[in-house]
Amino acid sequence: MTGVRPARGPRGAEAIHAAVLALLAEEGYVGLTVEGVARRSGINKTTLYRWWPSKPPLVAATFRHAIARDLPVPDTGTLRGDLVALVRSKAAFFADGPGRLAADVLAHTGADTELARLADELLGEHCAHVAEVTGRARARGELTGPVDDELLADLLLGPVWLRAVVTRRPLSGADADTLVDTLLAGLPR
Amino acid sequence: MTGVRPARGPRGAEAIHAAVLALLAEEGYVGLTVEGVARRSGINKTTLYRWWPSKPPLVAATFRHAIARDLPVPDTGTLRGDLVALVRSKAAFFADGPGRLAADVLAHTGADTELARLADELLGEHCAHVAEVTGRARARGELTGPVDDELLADLLLGPVWLRAVVTRRPLSGADADTLVDTLLAGLPR
Repeated sequence: MTGVRPARGPRGAEAIHAAVLALLAEEGYVGLTVEGVARRSGINKTTLYRWWPSKPPLVAATFRHAIARDLPVPDTGTLRGDLVALVRSKAAFFADGPGRLAADVLAHTGADTELARLADELLGEHCAHVAEVTGRARARGELTGPVDDELLADLLLGPVWLRAVVTRRPLSGADADTLVDTLLAGLPR
Repeated sequence: MTGVRPARGPRGAEAIHAAVLALLAEEGYVGLTVEGVARRSGINKTTLYRWWPSKPPLVAATFRHAIARDLPVPDTGTLRGDLVALVRSKAAFFADGPGRLAADVLAHTGADTELARLADELLGEHCAHVAEVTGRARARGELTGPVDDELLADLLLGPVWLRAVVTRRPLSGADADTLVDTLLAGLPR
């Protein structure tokens, strides 16, 4: 399980992240305040502010924590296995729990540049996962030519996102397999 | 230019749709009211209500109108040409103007089931465009096997959506070409 970075944060970080997720579920991103997180978690407000100067980096840290815990970079031994695991785990992540809350927050990026930065950062982590998978596939000789990892990341996550966030009909496991097989083989010509 | 359906609506529909877009730009979806659209367009409120009983179907009709006008189904004579035109035109549509407003509205689907239905409907139109393109390609002998049109529609639109709506770094024309070539040829193995 590479790619899972050790959690950075104060003592009690678990309680803080749990409080952020509970308050996001109850009040949404707009209603959430750093003070509310301090009350809910029982962690001193000044401790929170020492680590995260405002709401967006605090929420970003909570999502980064959930991603590191719930979305390890797959290492199944094959490119197909890794890509299927990436798509399936992300579809499950965004359908429920912290991922559902993250999707709700990111769906409201609108004109909010701090949220757009958060979206960029989280999509950047996804892209790093994809690059790790393609890098290993290249080392095994499974990939022989250049791959645009950023575009591949968008091709893998875009359909997951449309279904989980926009239409709310999450991608099934079978759809995830078909998606990856289409990307691997191309259209039948 | 197939797939462009004749506009359904009362006399003055153009003025109504223009008023909806102007008010969405000024006040957002939440602030928009049918009464406000009546005032802005100079069309009688009862006429509006006769055609559209509430805000969501009125807004949906405006977006459908913009899509029929700005996003005809491409017919370039080749599958690659059609797919590139689909991706490029949708990237341009969502980056600016009515498409940007539609993306803003759809990005707020959240728990709103009427907005989720609107998203479903608009994505359904996109899927119908893709099915028309693959149907023609099959008739020309360019596609020889089965294609899941819904999944292909999500593979084409998902990356466009992530860039236009979530990260706000719209897909370039060159990225659109690479995306389509990746879908056509598969990953280099």
